[in-house]
Amino acid sequence: MSDAATFAPPAGLAAGTDLTALFRPRAIAVLGASGRVGNPFARPLTYLVEHGFAGAVYPVNPGYQTLEGLPCYPSLDDLPGEVDLVLMLVSATEVVRQLPAVARAGATAAVVFASGFAETGPDGQALQDDLVRLAREHGVRLLGPNCQGLVAVHDHVVASFTAALELGVPEPGNIAYIGQSGAVGGSIFSLARERGLRIGTWASTGNQADLGATEIANFLVEDPRIEVLTLYLESPVPGAEFDRLTARAAELGKSVLVLRSALSRSGARAATSHTGAIIGDDAAFTAMCRERGVIQADDVEDFIATAHALSVLPRSGGDRLAIITTSGGAGSLAADQAEARGMTVEDLTEPVRARLSKVVPDFGAVSNPVDVTAQMFKANETDGFIAVCDEVLADPTVDSVLVVLTMVTGGLATSMADGLCGLWARATKPVVVVWLAARQQTAEAREILRAKGMPVFDSPRIGVGVLHALGTSVPVPSQPNGHLSDLDVLSGLRGGVITEHEGAQVLAALGIDRPRERLVSSAEQAADAARALDGPLVLKIQSPDVPHKTERGGVRLGVGVDEAAAVYDEIVVRFAAEGATDVLVQEQVGEGPELLVGITNTEPGFPPLLTVGMGGVTTELYRDTTTGLAPVDARRAKEMLLELKAAPLLTGFRGRPGHDLDAAAAAIATLSRLAVLVGDRLVELEVNPLRLVDAGARAIALDFLLRLETSA
Amino acid sequence: MSDAATFAPPAGLAAGTDLTALFRPRAIAVLGASGRVGNPFARPLTYLVEHGFAGAVYPVNPGYQTLEGLPCYPSLDDLPGEVDLVLMLVSATEVVRQLPAVARAGATAAVVFASGFAETGPDGQALQDDLVRLAREHGVRLLGPNCQGLVAVHDHVVASFTAALELGVPEPGNIAYIGQSGAVGGSIFSLARERGLRIGTWASTGNQADLGATEIANFLVEDPRIEVLTLYLESPVPGAEFDRLTARAAELGKSVLVLRSALSRSGARAATSHTGAIIGDDAAFTAMCRERGVIQADDVEDFIATAHALSVLPRSGGDRLAIITTSGGAGSLAADQAEARGMTVEDLTEPVRARLSKVVPDFGAVSNPVDVTAQMFKANETDGFIAVCDEVLADPTVDSVLVVLTMVTGGLATSMADGLCGLWARATKPVVVVWLAARQQTAEAREILRAKGMPVFDSPRIGVGVLHALGTSVPVPSQPNGHLSDLDVLSGLRGGVITEHEGAQVLAALGIDRPRERLVSSAEQAADAARALDGPLVLKIQSPDVPHKTERGGVRLGVGVDEAAAVYDEIVVRFAAEGATDVLVQEQVGEGPELLVGITNTEPGFPPLLTVGMGGVTTELYRDTTTGLAPVDARRAKEMLLELKAAPLLTGFRGRPGHDLDAAAAAIATLSRLAVLVGDRLVELEVNPLRLVDAGARAIALDFLLRLETSA
Repeated sequence: MSDAATFAPPAGLAAGTDLTALFRPRAIAVLGASGRVGNPFARPLTYLVEHGFAGAVYPVNPGYQTLEGLPCYPSLDDLPGEVDLVLMLVSATEVVRQLPAVARAGATAAVVFASGFAETGPDGQALQDDLVRLAREHGVRLLGPNCQGLVAVHDHVVASFTAALELGVPEPGNIAYIGQSGAVGGSIFSLARERGLRIGTWASTGNQADLGATEIANFLVEDPRIEVLTLYLESPVPGAEFDRLTARAAELGKSVLVLRSALSRSGARAATSHTGAIIGDDAAFTAMCRERGVIQADDVEDFIATAHALSVLPRSGGDRLAIITTSGGAGSLAADQAEARGMTVEDLTEPVRARLSKVVPDFGAVSNPVDVTAQMFKANETDGFIAVCDEVLADPTVDSVLVVLTMVTGGLATSMADGLCGLWARATKPVVVVWLAARQQTAEAREILRAKGMPVFDSPRIGVGVLHALGTSVPVPSQPNGHLSDLDVLSGLRGGVITEHEGAQVLAALGIDRPRERLVSSAEQAADAARALDGPLVLKIQSPDVPHKTERGGVRLGVGVDEAAAVYDEIVVRFAAEGATDVLVQEQVGEGPELLVGITNTEPGFPPLLTVGMGGVTTELYRDTTTGLAPVDARRAKEMLLELKAAPLLTGFRGRPGHDLDAAAAAIATLSRLAVLVGDRLVELEVNPLRLVDAGARAIALDFLLRLETSA
Repeated sequence: MSDAATFAPPAGLAAGTDLTALFRPRAIAVLGASGRVGNPFARPLTYLVEHGFAGAVYPVNPGYQTLEGLPCYPSLDDLPGEVDLVLMLVSATEVVRQLPAVARAGATAAVVFASGFAETGPDGQALQDDLVRLAREHGVRLLGPNCQGLVAVHDHVVASFTAALELGVPEPGNIAYIGQSGAVGGSIFSLARERGLRIGTWASTGNQADLGATEIANFLVEDPRIEVLTLYLESPVPGAEFDRLTARAAELGKSVLVLRSALSRSGARAATSHTGAIIGDDAAFTAMCRERGVIQADDVEDFIATAHALSVLPRSGGDRLAIITTSGGAGSLAADQAEARGMTVEDLTEPVRARLSKVVPDFGAVSNPVDVTAQMFKANETDGFIAVCDEVLADPTVDSVLVVLTMVTGGLATSMADGLCGLWARATKPVVVVWLAARQQTAEAREILRAKGMPVFDSPRIGVGVLHALGTSVPVPSQPNGHLSDLDVLSGLRGGVITEHEGAQVLAALGIDRPRERLVSSAEQAADAARALDGPLVLKIQSPDVPHKTERGGVRLGVGVDEAAAVYDEIVVRFAAEGATDVLVQEQVGEGPELLVGITNTEPGFPPLLTVGMGGVTTELYRDTTTGLAPVDARRAKEMLLELKAAPLLTGFRGRPGHDLDAAAAAIATLSRLAVLVGDRLVELEVNPLRLVDAGARAIALDFLLRLETSA
């Protein structure tokens, strides 16, 4: 039995979910345990017994007296003691029928392996809804259904029948893996064994009817034995849970790595049919990953390689790469990969170069990449090579080191492996090895490295990708200042589209620059306003029923003072059907570059997503925008502007003048705080364009669209 | 001895180099053969004997009476018979000293393994120059120096000491590998053995003092036993040789695969130090690859995987992918990868879906990806799965099939491997397998596939990448029509910068539209011209000494007829220093989108590179250009315009009108032919902007720059 100390929920779990019953149960019942050899439903019981689960295990099956040498009970109601967890190896309908008995047996958690629920269609969905309702009524948390269970290596809980366990249970490690697909999870578990990375906790969440991957990760992030949380996600991610997870991981110095599928149309189609989920747009998710230093993998291979590296290497937080190689050609390939990823491969500092030049053979290279050439190994020993690595690691301008070995084989390879293990043990920066030689020729060396847990990769692309991932840092978070909560004007806003003039009052309250303007409702008032504002002027129809006023001819630019009355009449005639008579008369402000600022609520639970780009056709054709989560401060808003490919149009370019960006940044920051304040009611907030005039001294909101949920 | 028939140069080698003496020698001398165990210089002789080279082998070393049971000769002059090839296992200076003896021994080819030549600096370069001069004098072709030799498996020529041969010589295959770096070549040879792909001919070209990789490829492309030519290239590629190679490969239906390194700044630095080469800009190379269907790999891993696939699978020539998987999650990951590469993963046709729905379990998916789920294997047999693959392959809308297996292990895996081998043997479309399970759990299955030569990949990314590569087709080549060779105006052009007015005569001769214009050299003439052309006008200074006239205030737009004389005076005053008095008076043409058309000679031996983009700041900020090799025909020119991200600005976009592109395409085609005609004298030809007016009915060259070599 796990002792009471480990059964207690982790100390930091204040805000999270207590899944101790699921991951560290004191006793387990296995409902539907089978005694038939080869039946997958026989496996969990066998595994629990074989792998030394310390607590009580009760097989439950009316067809057996004993199983695996343990007394077998006819039903959950016949158990001799309470359990924390029930593994339900029975059919979908039977799962629902037995749920009350699970609770009666004392369990607060159950693993439901059966398929036949939401993934099969409406009937299955109804059955799943019943299951969840019952579980909530009885206080039982569910893993599944349609899942492959969990393995908690440290606590000897092997509650799965994944074929990956045919290789035995791995040594306990600091990696947690949580993912929906049992098949993908099994593959990753199996490949992890092969590659030598150590998964300590593994869970397949299946249909996620109750527990989802992020909720589980919020529990596991508190486990001191887990340092790397890896998630394979097919469904939309609950924003608040992911927020809490990533914030907590950053606080504890733990890494979060995500592989996300179903991002493409056909990818989503594939995922839908088996778990009923579509991710679709994940811009807010991606923005949160960026802001929290969460690493997103591209592919299964990257995912496994990066998980391995995160589990055994420090995160460098920087992209200055040094490459040390036995081949100029291989070094060159690695350098190409690094530069393509935006890493820098710069010359080493002079003192390091000087020291290297004493040991590297003449026609090698002491620049970066460092090419020691095969000549270095003439005496069949690798001390000189390892000394080169130590020198390079000591260079203060180097964040991480990639060692690219070519045909270092046989006895030399073994010596190299020993040297690399020593290097790796004393290095405070990440060192990654790419070994371009067949396993048959390097088997002993690879086994030495594998036994120590040190990763070896097959290609420069993977090695560079991993070091780039380790270079990910957590950006300085925004610190929005000031409070908008006393913004009375907001409380009066009705739902639907807010007209520009109504919005203008909000902007005025926020201190965002607007053209001088007057709302008029007759030609005579228009003439008066024109005289007061002086020309040239802009006239715009104002009606909640006319959101796209430009396209319908409701906006006229360059109107002279004397023309204002006539133009008023021309405009309102066009909107006779809507009965709109309100027209905004504005000064026409000076020329300058225009920005687009848009804020929308995208994925449930995530903060609003702020999008900034250049105004006009450019943004649309080149998708030249940056995104961040609201609110941002002015520092971050300015940073976003500078991230645009078109930033030179703002900062000065080929003789064009630059613009001060402070006013624009302040306006963007304020708008982002407004969006947060509006909260769930917000559908869309857009200022397009925000025009920079007077060399950026002013940022003027030339148009404004606010759309709110009408139901609120 | 290889028989006379195979020694004859290949039939198609009319235009190429005869390297029969190098790759299929009748007799070989091994100069400097060593008898010391473990000495790399002992290996080539051992290999030649062990691997059954049929011709005479003569070790040459005054220190031995016999080696490997063969009589050993004191010098090349003592051989009992003539040889075709000498392997030179002696030091750099000794290589140079012995070269005349190589020729005296009858050899017309030599492999120079020694380093100490150009890669070590100026002295080594001088020695290398001596070597090449001597070789040319004596009619000896050289492989190397600083190389690791060659292996011609079909003919049992093992003339290398690469450690990759520790695994033995591979079975003969249809792949040729040629690359500079011996280390990278060794790695690829070694990894190829591990992965089960079969290299028939392998060569390391080292410093390429004489023979380069492309010249060798031009020889090997004629070998009927070679169907896939794979090249690892660090140096600039000779254009004419690459042109001949790729044209001939296309003609023979053979594939060319290239891995190119030293493309980045630091990558080039790495390559430079070991072979003295920098690639730099390779736009013309890339354009030629695209036009000839040559596949460029990104990384060592992609290179090996793609070579393998090309050697055993048909090229589909299309990007419509079907995915068949045991896991919806894995299928989804693969579909994401495919869409990210621009492949399509569309629903299968209705008859195929109908047939699939009879065999795929209920909660699987018969759309694309096809998710058969693990339920399909309940009876532990794979016939149903293979039947699904056959159905999908028969779908006429499918170009290629990716099979993604997850935890299919043990006996099921073996059955699957047998099934896949059968499928692969009868399929006329490419089928690629990604198997996401540890080797230990799938060893027997993998061995079955490996023995047949069928590739299995480790990740969806690689599998999808390979099928994308197999989908590469040779685009329809341009067929420029008409002849420009009677363009007398060209012959009179001097070198240096040609002014716009001089260029205008060339454009006029070509029939390219220009604004109406007159060249004037006084204020009075300017006034006359203005009256004749009518306003508004453009005035531009004309002088070969003022290439950047706009930046210096030498261009004035929107000049009225009455202002022309005064503006003339203002302009010439600015260029008093140059004494320029010629001014072009042009009509100012209507508004319209502007294109940039640039043509330059970039890499030696390649045709001029044509670059087309949108004019103005957009092109510079977003690098939105397309490139092709001159000449292009109007069809291809139009295709290039439509490849621009900004193409909607030309074709119509959000209510903006579209433009006819025929006039622009015709002008671009004509300019590209002009560039070819100018030939090596061309430095730069640019029309920027080419403005589309009258909805594209006219494409007017508003400016023109032609720069020629002055020496010519």
